Amino acid sequence: MIQFSINKTFFLQALTITKRAISSKNAIPILSSLKLEVSAEGITLTGSNGQISIEHAIHQDNENAGLLITSPGSILLEANFFINIVSSLPDVTLDFQEIEHHQVVLKSGKSEITLKGKDVDQYPRLQEMTAKNPLTFDTKLLKTLISETAFAASTQESRPILTGVHFVLTNQKEFKAVATDSHRMSQRQLTLDKAGDDFDVVLPSRSLRELSAVFTEDIESIEVFFSANQMLFRTDNISFYTRLLEGTYPDTDRLLIADFETELICRTTTLRSAMERAFLVSNASQNGTVKLEIRNQLVTAHVNSPEVGKVNEEIDTEGLTGGDLTISFNPTYLIEALKALKSETVKIRFISPVRPFTLTPGDDSENFIQLITPVRTN
Amino acid sequence: MIQFSINKTFFLQALTITKRAISSKNAIPILSSLKLEVSAEGITLTGSNGQISIEHAIHQDNENAGLLITSPGSILLEANFFINIVSSLPDVTLDFQEIEHHQVVLKSGKSEITLKGKDVDQYPRLQEMTAKNPLTFDTKLLKTLISETAFAASTQESRPILTGVHFVLTNQKEFKAVATDSHRMSQRQLTLDKAGDDFDVVLPSRSLRELSAVFTEDIESIEVFFSANQMLFRTDNISFYTRLLEGTYPDTDRLLIADFETELICRTTTLRSAMERAFLVSNASQNGTVKLEIRNQLVTAHVNSPEVGKVNEEIDTEGLTGGDLTISFNPTYLIEALKALKSETVKIRFISPVRPFTLTPGDDSENFIQLITPVRTN
Repeated sequence: MIQFSINKTFFLQALTITKRAISSKNAIPILSSLKLEVSAEGITLTGSNGQISIEHAIHQDNENAGLLITSPGSILLEANFFINIVSSLPDVTLDFQEIEHHQVVLKSGKSEITLKGKDVDQYPRLQEMTAKNPLTFDTKLLKTLISETAFAASTQESRPILTGVHFVLTNQKEFKAVATDSHRMSQRQLTLDKAGDDFDVVLPSRSLRELSAVFTEDIESIEVFFSANQMLFRTDNISFYTRLLEGTYPDTDRLLIADFETELICRTTTLRSAMERAFLVSNASQNGTVKLEIRNQLVTAHVNSPEVGKVNEEIDTEGLTGGDLTISFNPTYLIEALKALKSETVKIRFISPVRPFTLTPGDDSENFIQLITPVRTN
Repeated sequence: MIQFSINKTFFLQALTITKRAISSKNAIPILSSLKLEVSAEGITLTGSNGQISIEHAIHQDNENAGLLITSPGSILLEANFFINIVSSLPDVTLDFQEIEHHQVVLKSGKSEITLKGKDVDQYPRLQEMTAKNPLTFDTKLLKTLISETAFAASTQESRPILTGVHFVLTNQKEFKAVATDSHRMSQRQLTLDKAGDDFDVVLPSRSLRELSAVFTEDIESIEVFFSANQMLFRTDNISFYTRLLEGTYPDTDRLLIADFETELICRTTTLRSAMERAFLVSNASQNGTVKLEIRNQLVTAHVNSPEVGKVNEEIDTEGLTGGDLTISFNPTYLIEALKALKSETVKIRFISPVRPFTLTPGDDSENFIQLITPVRTN
């Protein structure tokens, strides 16, 4: 039966990361548990919601863990409850001991808490992967490309494939991440330092957001493994598994057309705050659109919600070429697109009032392009 | 028709304070509006939910306001919407101009927003008070006594009078604030510096919490006016009105008995964190109580929730006199009582396992006493 002692703060950090995969409202009730496995090498914490699984290893020789293992074993504990109890303990050290009937006694300072656990056999067998030929991603880069694309995925389950982000590797080095909800699209491309096997997969955008939260920037790089139905992101301590979405992702390349008639460059924050004002008023009306007018070298934005009021904004430009144009769109899409842009300026290219327009960093700093579909108004 | 310009940040602060009285979900829809009145002396903002009303004055000569009034008038504006719009404006200055049909044009930088307002005649007439003979409270002291008592008021509407805090002045200087939900009670007394007319009123605890949020500690003192059915708290800029609760407050003095059998002194934080652990486990069971045992100079706390687990805590004491005792109670009441105590130690006096016990500051720093009723267990 399990017995060990550990630094409470360190343990709590590992528990909190593992908990990100655990939902208290799961169709499979046992998945609200955390699996704790103790061996001579250390402790492994496992959490899963059926879509995402996280394994967090605490190695015996990790100095910060203050880990002293007396006896190995494994047990299931109600995750939320257990974590709340651990976080409330008074002392820096926690003694963990399993007793009869899958009960666990936690001692810390002058506090002694006994909790009921469950037999580890009740936990479902999580998918395992034969991990080979990983790609290596810089953590910061991986997090950036997620923040640049995942928001553009659909939140509607009517076309499940669009709730994912399309990850593609071609020519062993050319990586592309793209997401679209059919109203807007966001695509980031980059060339990997080290070649890998080509792949073409669709990851749930929700998994990617959890992934971003789990891997902090102090971790330098992440190994990425692919299989037919899942993907594994791995560091020394953390293994993050996610299921893939089934189905064929639509061809998004055909949407990107190099031609344009009008090109506008402006400061990202200026345009964003103008759109945020427009949104406040447009959001109160049924139509919900903002009209952008480019005329005589002047760029203006207009909202007219008969019930609520009107907005007129004049937008300072850093560059403007091509013909006059009037185009209407949902300001939310432009606000979210501008939030995803890290560059100080944004370059917007228009073809016509009824064709999607593109946004790229004004300084061409990244191979990052977004597309927004206008709304036809009479 | 109204016309003025003002510093946006200053205006926003005043709006945000006034908004505390405004609820977007009110039985009287017009109360979701903010009333804006402009005269030669300055601007008055008014918000009300029928229970609380706040009037915020911005004086013409306040240097921080940057106020320039061109034309007076008054109008109603949808509070939430108007405040969101003002907060989104790009420039430090805001030009406000009323146009035809109760519309308002806001100009700031290159942004121009037109909003629909309403005729000020639609706003209900709020109670007015003939303000005379105020008491003066130190702001910090008033906020302290609210935080020491309001939490103990009932949240149940079954006995409406208990949702209030009883404010009593006797002998012109002896002030008492007391709240009880019939399971626990909290009473703070103090002697005023300056004499006033005796009173006996019950204030809604919700009003008092809003009051604490509205008056910040940088305001030195607050004038307090009483009438038969309402109370006014006033500073130079802010008038905060609240309705009083009708009915007779129960006699709480008879609950306070000077006798005791056992006296325990311990560190407030030590006891509180032990109770927080006890609560985590007790909360998962139907009974929901913690058992405190005083025996052989040892104080221990115990929870036993058959479904979840057990807690055993040994509590360090700073002082212990009197006989052994075992008493059960809801740990939530003790946690909240200890939160309200500012002193480092707490003095707890017990009469018997079935009689309420009292808590006072261990250092007798304030005339502040709390009472918790135990739960009878078999």
